[in-house]
Parts: sequence; C-alpha cells; structure tokens
Amino acid sequence: MPKIYISQKEYERRIELVRKELTKRKLDALYLTSGTSFFYLTGYSYIPTERPAALIIPKKGKITFLGPLLEKDHIPLKTKLIEEIKTYTDYPGEKHPIEHFAQFLKEMKLHNKRIGIDNPAGAAGIWGYKGPSIKDKLPKAKFVLAKDIIENMRLVKTEEEIELIKESAKWANLAHTLLQEYTTAGMWDVEISITASYEASLMMKKALGPEYMPTRYGRFPASAGFRGQVGPMSAIPHAIATNRNIQTGDVLITGATADVGGYSCELERTMIVGEPSAKQKKYFKIMLKAQEAALKAFKPGAKCSDVDKAARKVFIKAGVEEFMRHHTGHGLGLEPHEPPWLDIGDQTVLKPGMVLSCEPGIYIPGFAGFRHSDTVLITEDGAEVITYYPRDLDSLTVE
Amino acid sequence: MPKIYISQKEYERRIELVRKELTKRKLDALYLTSGTSFFYLTGYSYIPTERPAALIIPKKGKITFLGPLLEKDHIPLKTKLIEEIKTYTDYPGEKHPIEHFAQFLKEMKLHNKRIGIDNPAGAAGIWGYKGPSIKDKLPKAKFVLAKDIIENMRLVKTEEEIELIKESAKWANLAHTLLQEYTTAGMWDVEISITASYEASLMMKKALGPEYMPTRYGRFPASAGFRGQVGPMSAIPHAIATNRNIQTGDVLITGATADVGGYSCELERTMIVGEPSAKQKKYFKIMLKAQEAALKAFKPGAKCSDVDKAARKVFIKAGVEEFMRHHTGHGLGLEPHEPPWLDIGDQTVLKPGMVLSCEPGIYIPGFAGFRHSDTVLITEDGAEVITYYPRDLDSLTVE
Repeated sequence: MPKIYISQKEYERRIELVRKELTKRKLDALYLTSGTSFFYLTGYSYIPTERPAALIIPKKGKITFLGPLLEKDHIPLKTKLIEEIKTYTDYPGEKHPIEHFAQFLKEMKLHNKRIGIDNPAGAAGIWGYKGPSIKDKLPKAKFVLAKDIIENMRLVKTEEEIELIKESAKWANLAHTLLQEYTTAGMWDVEISITASYEASLMMKKALGPEYMPTRYGRFPASAGFRGQVGPMSAIPHAIATNRNIQTGDVLITGATADVGGYSCELERTMIVGEPSAKQKKYFKIMLKAQEAALKAFKPGAKCSDVDKAARKVFIKAGVEEFMRHHTGHGLGLEPHEPPWLDIGDQTVLKPGMVLSCEPGIYIPGFAGFRHSDTVLITEDGAEVITYYPRDLDSLTVE
Repeated sequence: MPKIYISQKEYERRIELVRKELTKRKLDALYLTSGTSFFYLTGYSYIPTERPAALIIPKKGKITFLGPLLEKDHIPLKTKLIEEIKTYTDYPGEKHPIEHFAQFLKEMKLHNKRIGIDNPAGAAGIWGYKGPSIKDKLPKAKFVLAKDIIENMRLVKTEEEIELIKESAKWANLAHTLLQEYTTAGMWDVEISITASYEASLMMKKALGPEYMPTRYGRFPASAGFRGQVGPMSAIPHAIATNRNIQTGDVLITGATADVGGYSCELERTMIVGEPSAKQKKYFKIMLKAQEAALKAFKPGAKCSDVDKAARKVFIKAGVEEFMRHHTGHGLGLEPHEPPWLDIGDQTVLKPGMVLSCEPGIYIPGFAGFRHSDTVLITEDGAEVITYYPRDLDSLTVE
C-alpha cells in the first residue's frame, strides 16, 4: 500500500507531546478551536461553519470533542483518538453553544483548572457567529493563551509528514505537466486549469487506489491553475481571476499542488506564451538568479532572514528592488502558509525537517510578474528541493 | 449585458449607510478586518493570508486600505472606492504590521478617536499569524466592537443582490442537471462532480460573456457535487469525502451553486440510485413533508424559530426526531452561511428581502441521510423559492 496517510502511531505520539507540554506549562488541559489542530492531532477533519467546536486534550482523561450534533456520527468514522463526544443541537440554539461548553468542562472537572487555549473567545467564530467568551462563563478557570503548543510542534516535519509532502509533489507535477500541455493562446485560463486538475485528480486516484480520499472540503485531489495571473495580471501576485483569454506574448504564473493525507506541496512556475521578448527574458533571468541564490542559502543553522536577504541581494544588485512585492517564502505542510517566514523580520533558525516554499518574485505593474515557487526540505547537511518541475525558460515556453 | 455584478451606485449606497451608522453611534471610523466586508463595501476581493489587512471607513475622509504591499497594484484594478492605500512590505517584517497600522491611523488622525472594529485584535489572524492588538498600540483611541454594522446591513438583500442570487440559481441548476445525468453506479463521486462542474462553468462563461469572472479564490464558477454523502455516508451531514464508488441502492446527497458577482444560491437534493426501497421511500417522504411544512412557514412577520418548529413538528409526528442533526436553514448570499438562522433559538423576524436556505434533514446512522436544500426569498406577501430543481422522488431516481 502506498503511504498516503499519517499513521495512528504518529497521532498518538503527537498527543503525547501535547501532554508533556501541558505538564511543563502546569496546564490541566488544552482547549483547541482550530480545525487544523483537530486534524493534526487525530486525523479528523470537518467543515468549519458558524457552529462552535472545540477539542479538549486533558493532561489526564479522555480526549473530548465539544461541538454540533451534526458531527456526532462523523467523528468515529474518521478517528479512534477522540474518546468522548459532547454535543449541542445547533447554533445559536435556545442555550448558546458556549454555555453548553462551560457545562461540558464542568462535567470534565476542568471548570476550576488551568486551561491552555488557542483562541480567547473559545470558538473559531466564522460566518456571522456571535457569542460570549468561554472565560466569562467559567470565571474559576484560568485560561492561558497556548496557541504556540501546536504551532511549535508543526514547525519541524516528521518523516511521515515529509513522505506525504513528497507524494504530493508527484501529483502536483502531473497536474502542472498537463496544465502546460493544454496551455495555448485563445483559451480561458479557468478551462485549462479545471481540465488539468480533473485529469490529474482521476489519475492520482486510480494510481493510489481505493484508500485515497481528499481529506479536506473544497479541494481537488490534485490541481494546477493560474489564479488569474495571465498577461499583465501576472504582475498581481494574488490576482484571483482575469476576464480575458490567454494571448501570445503573455507571461503566466501557475500554481500546482495535491492533497495527500492532508499535506500539500507548493509548485509554481512562470511560463511564457510564444517567443519570449528581450524584456521578458531579462526579468525571468533575474528571478531565476534570485531563486537560485535563495536555494543556496537554505541550510540548517541559517536564519529565515538570511534566505530572504540572499534573494533580495540579487534583486537589489539587478536594480529591480522596486518590483518586489513580498518576501521569499513560508513554511507549509498542513496549511498553504505556515510559520516560519522567509522574511527579513523572522530570525527563526532553520532546522532539519522544516519544509518551506522558495519563491522570490518581481512584479512589473502593467507588464508582467515573474515567480517560481519550489518546496524545499531542510536536511542534516543542506536542503533538498522536493518539487522537480523544470525551472528554465526553454522548458517553460509554450506555443 | 446580463446583470452579473453589483453596481458602483450600490457600493456607494452601502458606504453611505455605514457612515450614517457611524454618526448614529458617535464613531469616527469603522476598522474592518473581514475580507467579506471589504468585498461587500467596495467589490474588491483578495486572498486572505497571515498578512494583516484592514479597511478603514472614516466618517469623513478617505476610505483607506491598510495591508501588505502585494495588494497595492491589485486594488485599483478592482475598485475605485478605496481612495488611499497604505502598505507594509510583508509579514512579520522588521516592524510588525500592527505597528504600521497604528502609525497609519495616526497619519489619518484617528489615533485618539472612537473607532468601531469588527475584531478586537485588529487582524483576521489566520495561518499562524501572531501579533499585538491594535488597541494596545493606540491607547488613546477608543475601540468599540461594531461587527454588527455590516452584519445588519447584509441581513436584508437589495434588488441587485437578489438578481445575482437568482442568476446563480440558473447555473446551479445546470450544474446539478449535469451531475444527475452523469451519476451512475460504479463511478467515483469526485469524477462526476468535477465533470459536471467543469461543463457548467464553461457554459456559464460562454453564456455570460467575457465580462464574467469568478470573484473569489478557489471556487468553480458553477459547481455541483456530493461532498462525500454517498451511500451510508449520506447519513453524515458534512461528510467531506468517501472512499468507495457509487453503488446501486445508494442514497446520495448533492449540492450545487454558482458564483455570480460574489453571490451564491444553495441547491441540494437527495437522489437514489436504482429502484428506491420501501425504507428509502418512507424517509424521503417524511423529509419532503418537513421541507414543505417549512416552506409554508416562510413569510414576513414570522420568526426564524417558527420555520424551524414547522419542520421539527413533522419529524416529531413521524417519530424520527432522533434522526435530526441540525436546524432548518440559514441566511446566505455572500457567504455559504450567514445570519439569520432558522433555529429554534433565533427569534429574528423574517422581512421581505431576506434570503435563506430551507433544508430540514434526517440522518439514519449506517443507513442514509435525506435532505433537500432550496434557496428562499422572503417577499412582501410570502416567499419565493429561487431554486427550481425538481424535488420529487421520481425525478431524483437515477439508473
């Protein structure tokens, strides 16, 4: 069987680490409201809505889900690690969910204890949610902000996590290859994107077998697209969409990824439609040089800011500093962006097992943008580039 | 030209209403961190990340965006209503974005004023964001929670909004029709879903013309799918995914929508593969009866809780109360769920122009779930069902 999920053993190890940290911080429980944290600790994912949900990891005692009734039958199908499920009917309800949560914490004898929490409100609070703070409902409890417990654990990836990200890179590569094959002047970028994502997703499923499922809502298994970065709109780093079709002479910025057990890589490329102009070649070359400089700076012991500086130095030397619009990259894995940040202001020291994007870019307003993004793993003695799609201009020129 | 976007005039009207409310509440400005609110007031949408962004609506003075440099060139392409753009380079930066925001508010002479805010932290705070509160950086300002200003405005839809939701219903109907046509035993639900969504999106684009663009990141223009509610997994209201193919005898729960100028409808159906069994027919009939009872309860002057009670009454009478997993529906429009809530605990009075889903459901663990969802507009003298896909069992039985 291919390795496409995190093992039960690893989830147990993560929970054990949380409990060790609780002991260290003299906390009696951890109260999590982040769905990503639920998934990280147990493999159970759900669709976040206005309905409050919390996962309680007591130092001793049963791991307990507090949340809406509609998740009751879902949880046991996805994880064996959640030992107790306490639910309210729905939001807002005749009694507010946070009032229920206060009651549930009393039942767990945590109402007068020290509780680490990732969100002071006690609820993620999206889509028009309103409610009191759990703190106000349990005045005898001491709530301590402890968002960093899970964040710190996620900073350095384990072997299992790295394996899933590497598997993701294969299917991102397929999706991107199809995307490039189908890219041609006259087409709507969305059409190319959906076609490539559809085919790559089907092939991924057929290859990985019946066990494979997307783990989170609203995602293609494998996907590639342009996110609106077509022609002059490629100069907008987060363009979302454009309303004109691809034309000869366009610079395109792509993105591809795949969901393997909830983990993803990041693969982005600058492509050019037709023979590249001298101006396009010039900026492409500078961008590539900056990425290469950054890639060389990835190594254990270096600081995140060092990598950002290495890329910046190339841009400054080439006189294109004014066209920079963002830093060099970010951690990734479970979420599209995660700490640490390859930013001049982040002094985090790179460690083996960290996985980050490497994507210095330049954006010339009204003309075009230039950015590749690769996923990089910090190793014991340097770095390994996990994504392997060609980066040179010849390979990325389409007819 | 088909009507596929909110007009400039309506955005201006919305901003005017915000300013009237600021005067009423003796506030000098509104500080918004919600990307949905930016879009609601100006038509500018962006991809939310860890990077803080805020839209400042002063009672008098320029509407100002505070945010990352990478949005600088994007904003003027999407809206003329944001009059000033103040940016920081990136997150976390050598100086934290919230420090920059404090400085920007000083430049706007708001540092010692009364400011309404939708999030006390001053940043949406996703994806590993950390930072101080804007309150702590501007001790002379008085921040007042005013999340409800925009929420209240969004409760009752305008004619333009209703028109876009009605347009959305057409393309959701196409996507759902294709979904049903392609549904057959032996197939992976994701394949059917992507095929239907791809074709409906292409046809929608070709029909609406070059002006059409998806407005938000990661959405198909039109989509239909199963979200994992296949066979016994249909009993899980928010199942996300399943790893077995569709089989004869399966109950399937679908969902379809389309993005028209940022507005969406909600269309969901219970379908059955092959000749329905007596047990399937029984539950389907009860569900349909509950939906019909709820639909009859929609009228101006009724309370949200009345509609929920009307559906519950049918379930209780049929002896299937234990299979309820959620309330009867929710507001919708810009977000998949919005207030008000068709919930026993929501005493909001229904008014003409409110748009809500009507979706009472029952879920029999290990067997199947039964739920239709329709989008309903409250009118002057009753209600209009905006989605119009067939609801009867015959029409929803596939071979």
